Amino acid sequence: MGEFDLIDRFFKRPPRQAVVGVGDDCAVWTPREGHQLALSADMLVEGRHFLSTVDPVHLGHKALAVNLSDLAACGATPQAFLLSLSLPRADEAWLSLFTKGLFDLADAHACELIGGDTTQGPLNIAITVMGDVPNGHAILRRNAQVGDDIYVSGFLGDARLALEAFRGAISLPESVFSIARSRMECPDPRVGLGQALRGTATAMADISDGLVGDLGHILQSSHVGAEIDVSLASNLMSTATLWHCPEDLALTCVFAGGDDYELVFTAAPSSAQQVQLASEMTNTRVTRIGRICPEPGLNLRDAQGRSVKRTLLSFDHFG
Amino acid sequence: MGEFDLIDRFFKRPPRQAVVGVGDDCAVWTPREGHQLALSADMLVEGRHFLSTVDPVHLGHKALAVNLSDLAACGATPQAFLLSLSLPRADEAWLSLFTKGLFDLADAHACELIGGDTTQGPLNIAITVMGDVPNGHAILRRNAQVGDDIYVSGFLGDARLALEAFRGAISLPESVFSIARSRMECPDPRVGLGQALRGTATAMADISDGLVGDLGHILQSSHVGAEIDVSLASNLMSTATLWHCPEDLALTCVFAGGDDYELVFTAAPSSAQQVQLASEMTNTRVTRIGRICPEPGLNLRDAQGRSVKRTLLSFDHFG
Repeated sequence: MGEFDLIDRFFKRPPRQAVVGVGDDCAVWTPREGHQLALSADMLVEGRHFLSTVDPVHLGHKALAVNLSDLAACGATPQAFLLSLSLPRADEAWLSLFTKGLFDLADAHACELIGGDTTQGPLNIAITVMGDVPNGHAILRRNAQVGDDIYVSGFLGDARLALEAFRGAISLPESVFSIARSRMECPDPRVGLGQALRGTATAMADISDGLVGDLGHILQSSHVGAEIDVSLASNLMSTATLWHCPEDLALTCVFAGGDDYELVFTAAPSSAQQVQLASEMTNTRVTRIGRICPEPGLNLRDAQGRSVKRTLLSFDHFG
Repeated sequence: MGEFDLIDRFFKRPPRQAVVGVGDDCAVWTPREGHQLALSADMLVEGRHFLSTVDPVHLGHKALAVNLSDLAACGATPQAFLLSLSLPRADEAWLSLFTKGLFDLADAHACELIGGDTTQGPLNIAITVMGDVPNGHAILRRNAQVGDDIYVSGFLGDARLALEAFRGAISLPESVFSIARSRMECPDPRVGLGQALRGTATAMADISDGLVGDLGHILQSSHVGAEIDVSLASNLMSTATLWHCPEDLALTCVFAGGDDYELVFTAAPSSAQQVQLASEMTNTRVTRIGRICPEPGLNLRDAQGRSVKRTLLSFDHFG
């Protein structure tokens, strides 16, 4: 199977919104009037972002999910993506499964594959995703205000828990492992919640490197600090984490576990009802965990307001 | 040096056209009114697209050049790009040189880096580039008309000649090798010519896989065939090719050599003067090599109109 056969067979589909899709030198796209574009790129490398044993269906899903999560974090509506794929060989069975996972998620979000590249080499999946937002309505990291509440979507820590189980650092019952593993391998990007928070959230980021690190980006960009109530944050632990983890590891999973692809965002206390509404409309759990304060840095406090000391680092690819 | 230091130090520059550039979950971009977007992605893998001995300055240049060449092939004006980079290690000397080559070319085309990703892994450079064209003016592969003249920009074959010299299949004097090598490692994307041909060229592609293959894409998309006059096409051979190649290899370099990043395009005979003007305005040599005909397929003929039989294949990454 040659490069062009491979593209025709696995990646070429009739254009939908695109004026020109896969198969010319460029894709051609007409942006919606009154909208700005939001663009993001993520690259997944074998051994670094996924294990060689991963189900190709899950890998196809995750490669796009981590990109959609970046759009979600800006409140953008997914529109289209480009896929650059380096493969050791043109393995038809693998490609069938990979593209199934990829296109099922793409179709669920009406996000169209409009271009890309395929080549031979070590397995590497690079996706650039494009969404749009009404002019001036992108939710950035830089606008958190002193006094804002801090919220997190869904649960945190399962992906890290699965990783620790893979590493042999913890032993989990099969049923629990399977839930945690599926959260690691098949994250559900919070695209609906992200859009529902336009006009409500003042700042937002997705949690790919861990809560402390990604909230840290918001604090740094907004030149503010935060106080987190650790007892509230404990509500972010999912059942799996609560039941099967030593407390220290559980807190590490929640505060520094990467790969969860939940959203952390800030909103004025007067917007609490809108946050609740966005949560209900999109059927996505949202937990308040603290408040933005003027002093820089991140303070973890217990229910009695006492400082909790912890060295919690987020994930760094060259760290 | 951590991932975020690396990004700050080597890749973060103040946004120019972008509303939000490197450093948020997404870049935010406002498209020009009355314009469509042209998007393309290319991935370069060590050992496949470049040799490990390549000068990182040239590699940075080439990684963007092959993407700009796709924009050129649509007549688009470069606007912005996203870079996903997998590196074995955060090597500061290498990154300084790589980003010099990358940004020098980007600045020459006012094409802004607005986002991307860095990770650890086998060396892999994936770029997605975005340009724009006035609504309805993208030059596609699908609109070549019977009777159109076929043109090629610049010279062809030097990149393949350099590759053959690297492989030891041919021996070149140092001065000639150095010219050919620079054409292979530092291609000059024909962005100006591509834009100047808007409204004149009926179909266009860039020559990355070889003239026969890339012209073949135009013929296939346009449901037409072509007659090429081999004696005219000989004018595409550069000095290096003419002087230092056995005739058979020279023709292979011209017709099937990849990596030249020239443009092949079609235009009505009545547009010959506009083609000439575009060539002069952009100081880019253009050579007429044949004509579009109704019968599918590519016929090579000599000056006397006799058929020339050759098996000339274009490059295929999984062939």
